[in-house]
Amino acid sequence: MVHKITGVLFNHNLNVTQTDEFVVQESERFFMRISFTGTCDESTLKNELESLLPLDAKIDIHPPKIKKVVVLVTKEHHCLGDLLIKNQFQDLPFAIQAVIGNHEVLKPICTQFAIPFHWIPTEGLDITQHEQQIGQAIDQYHPDLIVLAKYMRILSPQFTSKYKGKMINIHHSSLPAFVGANPYLQAYERGVKIIGATAHFVTDELDEGPIISQDIISINHTMSPKDLSRAGKEVEKRVLSKALKLVLEDRVFIHQNKTILFE
Amino acid sequence: MVHKITGVLFNHNLNVTQTDEFVVQESERFFMRISFTGTCDESTLKNELESLLPLDAKIDIHPPKIKKVVVLVTKEHHCLGDLLIKNQFQDLPFAIQAVIGNHEVLKPICTQFAIPFHWIPTEGLDITQHEQQIGQAIDQYHPDLIVLAKYMRILSPQFTSKYKGKMINIHHSSLPAFVGANPYLQAYERGVKIIGATAHFVTDELDEGPIISQDIISINHTMSPKDLSRAGKEVEKRVLSKALKLVLEDRVFIHQNKTILFE
Amino acid sequence: MVHKITGVLFNHNLNVTQTDEFVVQESERFFMRISFTGTCDESTLKNELESLLPLDAKIDIHPPKIKKVVVLVTKEHHCLGDLLIKNQFQDLPFAIQAVIGNHEVLKPICTQFAIPFHWIPTEGLDITQHEQQIGQAIDQYHPDLIVLAKYMRILSPQFTSKYKGKMINIHHSSLPAFVGANPYLQAYERGVKIIGATAHFVTDELDEGPIISQDIISINHTMSPKDLSRAGKEVEKRVLSKALKLVLEDRVFIHQNKTILFE
Amino acid sequence: MVHKITGVLFNHNLNVTQTDEFVVQESERFFMRISFTGTCDESTLKNELESLLPLDAKIDIHPPKIKKVVVLVTKEHHCLGDLLIKNQFQDLPFAIQAVIGNHEVLKPICTQFAIPFHWIPTEGLDITQHEQQIGQAIDQYHPDLIVLAKYMRILSPQFTSKYKGKMINIHHSSLPAFVGANPYLQAYERGVKIIGATAHFVTDELDEGPIISQDIISINHTMSPKDLSRAGKEVEKRVLSKALKLVLEDRVFIHQNKTILFE
Repeated sequence: MVHKITGVLFNHNLNVTQTDEFVVQESERFFMRISFTGTCDESTLKNELESLLPLDAKIDIHPPKIKKVVVLVTKEHHCLGDLLIKNQFQDLPFAIQAVIGNHEVLKPICTQFAIPFHWIPTEGLDITQHEQQIGQAIDQYHPDLIVLAKYMRILSPQFTSKYKGKMINIHHSSLPAFVGANPYLQAYERGVKIIGATAHFVTDELDEGPIISQDIISINHTMSPKDLSRAGKEVEKRVLSKALKLVLEDRVFIHQNKTILFE
Repeated sequence: MVHKITGVLFNHNLNVTQTDEFVVQESERFFMRISFTGTCDESTLKNELESLLPLDAKIDIHPPKIKKVVVLVTKEHHCLGDLLIKNQFQDLPFAIQAVIGNHEVLKPICTQFAIPFHWIPTEGLDITQHEQQIGQAIDQYHPDLIVLAKYMRILSPQFTSKYKGKMINIHHSSLPAFVGANPYLQAYERGVKIIGATAHFVTDELDEGPIISQDIISINHTMSPKDLSRAGKEVEKRVLSKALKLVLEDRVFIHQNKTILFE
Repeated sequence: MVHKITGVLFNHNLNVTQTDEFVVQESERFFMRISFTGTCDESTLKNELESLLPLDAKIDIHPPKIKKVVVLVTKEHHCLGDLLIKNQFQDLPFAIQAVIGNHEVLKPICTQFAIPFHWIPTEGLDITQHEQQIGQAIDQYHPDLIVLAKYMRILSPQFTSKYKGKMINIHHSSLPAFVGANPYLQAYERGVKIIGATAHFVTDELDEGPIISQDIISINHTMSPKDLSRAGKEVEKRVLSKALKLVLEDRVFIHQNKTILFE
Repeated sequence: MVHKITGVLFNHNLNVTQTDEFVVQESERFFMRISFTGTCDESTLKNELESLLPLDAKIDIHPPKIKKVVVLVTKEHHCLGDLLIKNQFQDLPFAIQAVIGNHEVLKPICTQFAIPFHWIPTEGLDITQHEQQIGQAIDQYHPDLIVLAKYMRILSPQFTSKYKGKMINIHHSSLPAFVGANPYLQAYERGVKIIGATAHFVTDELDEGPIISQDIISINHTMSPKDLSRAGKEVEKRVLSKALKLVLEDRVFIHQNKTILFE
């Protein structure tokens, strides 16, 4: 397979700068990422590759581009703040199109960065209506990626399935520990010595999507639930930012409920 | 309180080298650790302190000593091996009295280190009988501490309650994640990006005792459950060794289901 | 000593919530930090303590306060951006009074946050004149702390001595490795597998001041000097933020060329 | 190139399970590691590959094997102890042939593991004579790898050049910090907040060889140089073990003074 694929690139005088492969033993699925330089017609290349690969092979060609991102938030600012800074200074290959919040508290910081903020309160709306409005707000920007930067509402399977593989969430714990709400209180009560954060793709099962990145920090007995939360925010910020970088650079492949990272 | 206690030491011409205090807000329990040098009669000192402290105050005076330790194992050697080396070269203030295994595979390594090994197979014994024999083997050494270095049998509340606050276990995951058996397979199937280990005191609730130390390592999609297990063993070794050091140096206070570490 | 000091607080009906002590063996200097609640006259308390402590004892009483901070920058935005966000949302007990830059590129981001920005270019000024202008800009705000958030000019001993113990710098390496400029290029050329950052107090010796905080990240052979720099910025941001928190909470004691951290 | 190489394997019906490539920009050197299963004549395969690769291409074919290792030590036991345990339980694909020490203190532990120990004291020998005896002791075992597990004598360029790319050293600091002796005392005096360890190939420049692995731990002001040393030993053990695993699995490529790790 490697031989066939590289052959096609070779014939197009494309210069391979890096390749990564991985075979998942159980499913015998083969994953490959090739970075190459040079010019050629994308569709031609894709057709040629399709012609010699198995029918069920999935081929994506990604020219380097700035990806369009929509961010969903509730009240916490730490992840959003980091993203707004990185967006303004182009620290990552993305362009934040808009921020959508079910509360209004984060509108001012978005305004400071001249990023449109959509306040979509839940008042007087059932979940379906609310998600419909959220969906409309998102779709008008045709984003490549949706980032839940501490969006604290549970989304319905109907909604999440619409954005399968395109929506990232930052969860405030080292999943699968402390699933659900108030993980820092749970962590405090359990008396753990480390707390973490998990960035994962959103699927219709809450907190069960493919994990992209995780990290932790050490904590101690002197820290209150509030201290844990404050410390945790720093990890959340870091983990989300790292996962986002990997996804924006097309280094993350989803296989069943796991990710393959070609870093 | 600090004033009263230091006053007593002062009157005995004892020289305080370090003090740590902590007040648990919810329970308003006050914890204090004082390191001091100098000589005095222990019981006199204890009596004086008791006389001026609340009736429910718990006072322990620990002259520096090499603590007697009994180790329980099953088949895995990594934690035991590390302890045997540290024991022989006095890397920690402990003296391993004996190793007890429900399998015989680790007898040779103990023999190499001239440490008595008790093989207590479960064959033909119900759990009560087996634990009785284990208990007898332990008690003959009057250990200060019992270390479960990958002892893979679930112990009964009857048994564990006998050694409350004196028995440490190393659990092969960042509790509360992946409670129970086969955590590395669970981790593999969940596709996590970090795995960890947890050292905790053993209580009658499986894997629910006060946590002493935790740490993690990063893993990736290329690693099989076996690779995860191998990587995990290194963390288990490290975490158990760190927790043991803290306990042997009398730096760990148990409060309800948590530990207070005066490092 | 502990006894005497706690006695004074006791007599004032002040409630000690936490104490930390440390004795530096070589110098036999004794350091103590006491957190207490309650009300009393500061100067009276200070006088009483002075009366019973050695003449060379240094006593500081810090009521909780929002500290005034001035930030110096050059062109890099990552540390400043993090500080501006934390300042606006009061994530730390500080209030940024102004930002001073020898270049103008970071003025817009300060303006977005309504923080005064002083552009003090070096053109046509010798170092003494330039530092004089910087000093004037700083002093008008009577800051409790000056933060060099990637200020890339070397400051003269005359200047730094003016702000002894009040000026923090973030250095882009795990000091003492890669002292001086271009540490990421140095790191790249040496082929190290980790890079770090160091937050330290500024003294008249370049990069030699008391270290407050350090951390690292793992890197690999695929990373260019630019990649290292990008990765390093995340660590710099984190380390500076952690050091700042400790200093703002009065947890950092300076002794000779080291810090004692009562965390 | 990838195309050509995989073509040869394809024609031999060899099944590629994993490939890694990397191009060093400056030198334009291309590095590739291919894991494959199947059977073929090694020399035939090598000849075919040589025929279509540039003349200066270096091709190595490594059938999986247990590598023969000789360990050099002085007085410290922590790294040796870990290696002896891992050797006995086959935790790594290596077989320790012998241990050579310039002191005799570690002979007993080797004897416990039934590993030959050669005591080669320096008394009455100049460095050339001593290294000659060490060299003879090493060479009789025809080792694939020589591990300096805290061998504290400086080796001459004449000696090290003999084992170029085959000799690994564990250095007790995060190189390039604290080069040379007594790094923990240096670290103590500088008041750093982290200490580390570095595993590297030995070259004729002291502590300047290609770095394989590095890691650190956090430390604090309460730790004496002795405490730092004790803490450092745990990192040294871990880092050496990790580097050894990578080298034994043929994942480490040396390019000029750096390593390329295909993990």
